[in-house]
Amino acid sequence: MRSIIYILGWILLVLAVLMLLPIATSAIYGETEGIAFMVVALCSAIAGIAVIRKRPENINFYAKEGLACTALGWIMLSLIGAIPLTLSGEIPSYLDAVFETVSGFTTTGASILRNVEQMSRTTNMWRCFTHWIGGMGILVFLLAVLPMVGGSNMQLMKAESPGPSVGKLVPKVRFTAQLLYGLYVALTVLMIVLLIAGRMPLYDAICTACGTAGTGGFGIYNDSCASFSPYLQWVITIFMILFGVNFNVYYLIFLRKFRDALRCEEMHWYLGIILTAGFLIFRNLAGQFATVEQGLRTVFFQVATIITTTGFSTVDFNVWPTFSKIIIILLMFIGACAGSTGGGTKVSRIAIIGKSFYSYIYSFLHPRSVRKVKFEGKEVEVETLRAIFVYYTGVFLIVSISVLLVALDGFDFETSFSAVAATFNNIGPGFGAAGPAANYADFSALSKCVMIFDMLAGRLEVFPVILLLYPRFWQEIGMEIYVRRMRNGRGYLDRRNTRGSR
Amino acid sequence: MRSIIYILGWILLVLAVLMLLPIATSAIYGETEGIAFMVVALCSAIAGIAVIRKRPENINFYAKEGLACTALGWIMLSLIGAIPLTLSGEIPSYLDAVFETVSGFTTTGASILRNVEQMSRTTNMWRCFTHWIGGMGILVFLLAVLPMVGGSNMQLMKAESPGPSVGKLVPKVRFTAQLLYGLYVALTVLMIVLLIAGRMPLYDAICTACGTAGTGGFGIYNDSCASFSPYLQWVITIFMILFGVNFNVYYLIFLRKFRDALRCEEMHWYLGIILTAGFLIFRNLAGQFATVEQGLRTVFFQVATIITTTGFSTVDFNVWPTFSKIIIILLMFIGACAGSTGGGTKVSRIAIIGKSFYSYIYSFLHPRSVRKVKFEGKEVEVETLRAIFVYYTGVFLIVSISVLLVALDGFDFETSFSAVAATFNNIGPGFGAAGPAANYADFSALSKCVMIFDMLAGRLEVFPVILLLYPRFWQEIGMEIYVRRMRNGRGYLDRRNTRGSR
Repeated sequence: MRSIIYILGWILLVLAVLMLLPIATSAIYGETEGIAFMVVALCSAIAGIAVIRKRPENINFYAKEGLACTALGWIMLSLIGAIPLTLSGEIPSYLDAVFETVSGFTTTGASILRNVEQMSRTTNMWRCFTHWIGGMGILVFLLAVLPMVGGSNMQLMKAESPGPSVGKLVPKVRFTAQLLYGLYVALTVLMIVLLIAGRMPLYDAICTACGTAGTGGFGIYNDSCASFSPYLQWVITIFMILFGVNFNVYYLIFLRKFRDALRCEEMHWYLGIILTAGFLIFRNLAGQFATVEQGLRTVFFQVATIITTTGFSTVDFNVWPTFSKIIIILLMFIGACAGSTGGGTKVSRIAIIGKSFYSYIYSFLHPRSVRKVKFEGKEVEVETLRAIFVYYTGVFLIVSISVLLVALDGFDFETSFSAVAATFNNIGPGFGAAGPAANYADFSALSKCVMIFDMLAGRLEVFPVILLLYPRFWQEIGMEIYVRRMRNGRGYLDRRNTRGSR
Repeated sequence: MRSIIYILGWILLVLAVLMLLPIATSAIYGETEGIAFMVVALCSAIAGIAVIRKRPENINFYAKEGLACTALGWIMLSLIGAIPLTLSGEIPSYLDAVFETVSGFTTTGASILRNVEQMSRTTNMWRCFTHWIGGMGILVFLLAVLPMVGGSNMQLMKAESPGPSVGKLVPKVRFTAQLLYGLYVALTVLMIVLLIAGRMPLYDAICTACGTAGTGGFGIYNDSCASFSPYLQWVITIFMILFGVNFNVYYLIFLRKFRDALRCEEMHWYLGIILTAGFLIFRNLAGQFATVEQGLRTVFFQVATIITTTGFSTVDFNVWPTFSKIIIILLMFIGACAGSTGGGTKVSRIAIIGKSFYSYIYSFLHPRSVRKVKFEGKEVEVETLRAIFVYYTGVFLIVSISVLLVALDGFDFETSFSAVAATFNNIGPGFGAAGPAANYADFSALSKCVMIFDMLAGRLEVFPVILLLYPRFWQEIGMEIYVRRMRNGRGYLDRRNTRGSR
């Protein structure tokens, strides 16, 4: 418990530092919104320093504490990150501000704003920057900058990183985290350069790159990316796809192990799905485009934006025929690669399921042969399969209950279902009243709360958030506090006794 | 292969015998449609006798042959059962007739008929009777009447019976099959008596009881059960629920082991789901009913008709609010108990998944404790979990691809999705253009073929039908024929040689 609070303190401090970016933006453009950020950053920093002043002797994280710390950290981050938005008056309703901030940190990109262009540059920079932070993860960032001795910090990384199993790139957790952020920064900077080369203003380029890198999707224009030049749209498409690839691949490229990088099985599935989906939608929409280039650009932009769960758009795919819409919904649930910044249920899970299915059918035909399921050259363990199974059960449970609650708003099935699918999978736009041309402002407060929960549950992959719903979990934490108080009390008495006897 | 053909021959013969019921109906009411049935029954009987004349020495069924035999048997049954409908001119299109017959045998109840009341009594009796045959299964019937020596006939029963694992009621397969049909007939007769007691004409009572017992759903009135008296609606509701219970329960009651019968865990889940769903929908529709009795009757009739996958209706639930519609969709996929006549993915699978999920979450909180998943007092084996996992993967695959293909017809998402859900889960009515007030006539030929496949895949629980799609499977059968011909040829030569040498 003490370890969890200690980490939360660090998160507060980091949050204060991160807010320097919108504060700087505010100073450059002479906007007043920065004051709100300064106030919150200051309070956050003071609170953070107060907490971390006393370092617990032993920072030890088991799976349970890792999950709890991640969930609580993300909730705190969102609740505090939303304050400046309400304080500055840009988003008057605090619930809406929390929705927007959670949508930012979880890289969802679902917005309650009706007119993004009206917002101050400070606010828009913060919105896009939350995507960038949330994409790779705040705890991974902490692990990169914070030297933590002892304890299995791996649990923190495991809880926050997407995918069925986290492979450490290198033996040391800290170096892995630094490497991930290094590659992340490098790719982001490269994208900013390429965008500026396409004559995009610096401010726009930073915001767009942050949104793409985190596979977030907040835009700074009401039409998202529709008015961008074909060059810019292609750059964004390619970088969305790049940020949806497992970062292991970039690490291998960084080590100049090009052949190993190309052999990444998840990447093959990922690119295969993108090409197949793009081809099917392109055929389904045949005749709707002036040129083939325009058709390919439009189709692959939307496919990339959905499978990587970014959520930008250049057209309103809500008006596409049902066939294409269903492919979009399937892509929503597939999502990007594990170990990327994207959301969804991850390509590797789908691939492992597909292979298990095939091997099961195979075993009917060849009852005597034993066929092991392999992925990325390694045998898939029963425990991994069980975790995937349970994960999808959780997905199904959360999505079903959420759709039921959202349906109480009276929207049609398509809107209710796709709004939940788009928030849970951290995409952003859905269909119907939640489509790319609409926004989430019209949903009720209950629905917004449900979707806030869904965005967090989707980003943290179900378990950390479900644990918080489990009464026993709080009891255990409570008990720990109780036990510690008892011990501290006794320790105090012991010391007094010792003193008295001196 | 020879064993499979032998069983198919018996199915032909049984089919001919079963057609005596519509032929008798035709004779009683002096309709001419019976002639078509007589012609088909005669041909079928002749073909069947020709095949079964030569009994193979060794009837041996492994899992593979069991699945193939079941799938081929059901396809043949449907293709031949549809001929009289087209021959008599009542359903001019043979594709439509096959759709209607598959819908009958798989106990789906999805109809392409725009006006059921226009049909002859002969045809309507046959339509409802196919439900009754399909409910308990044609192979189970064969096993009950046919003394088969040697071989593991269990494989046939396994392939046809719904649910994750088939428990033999008694050690002998044949006696189990007889017992199942005995209980089935008894319950059906009891229902007919109760319907007649409610002043329903005998003909209507037989048709309705067949549709209920098989959890099929073909009605003989255009408004399904809407014009029936409250008493009749309650009787149908209760019997739908009864036929959705695992028949193990009735066997235990038959043995007077009442306490064991009441302890059936799947039944508790099943009744719990019915009550919860009914309560939620009742609250959601509050104020729409004149009296509480009418409300409860309407709600529980629709809940029972959907969860047992029968598909009767007393109201058009297509106009219900989205919240209630989503509950209906969830019920569609849950379905009835394993070992009942109902479809869907079965309560026991859902229950086992739910328990596995809980035990997984529990293991996070108590990492050192080992908590085994138990169902019906027995530990759930890893192999069962794996089978469930693969089964749901198959369901997801088939439903996704089917929805995509059906979407090409240009209907909206709700219609495309619910039409596939309603046929795959063997329910009947869906939403939108496939709703209770509409029918399946407006779908394209491709969609009808897809849904015919879905109905069979749903009834036979995915694997038998998927195997037929697998090229290797046909190769293997082909190879077997080839090998046998070689052997027979050599055997013939050997015999000649022997003779010559005499």
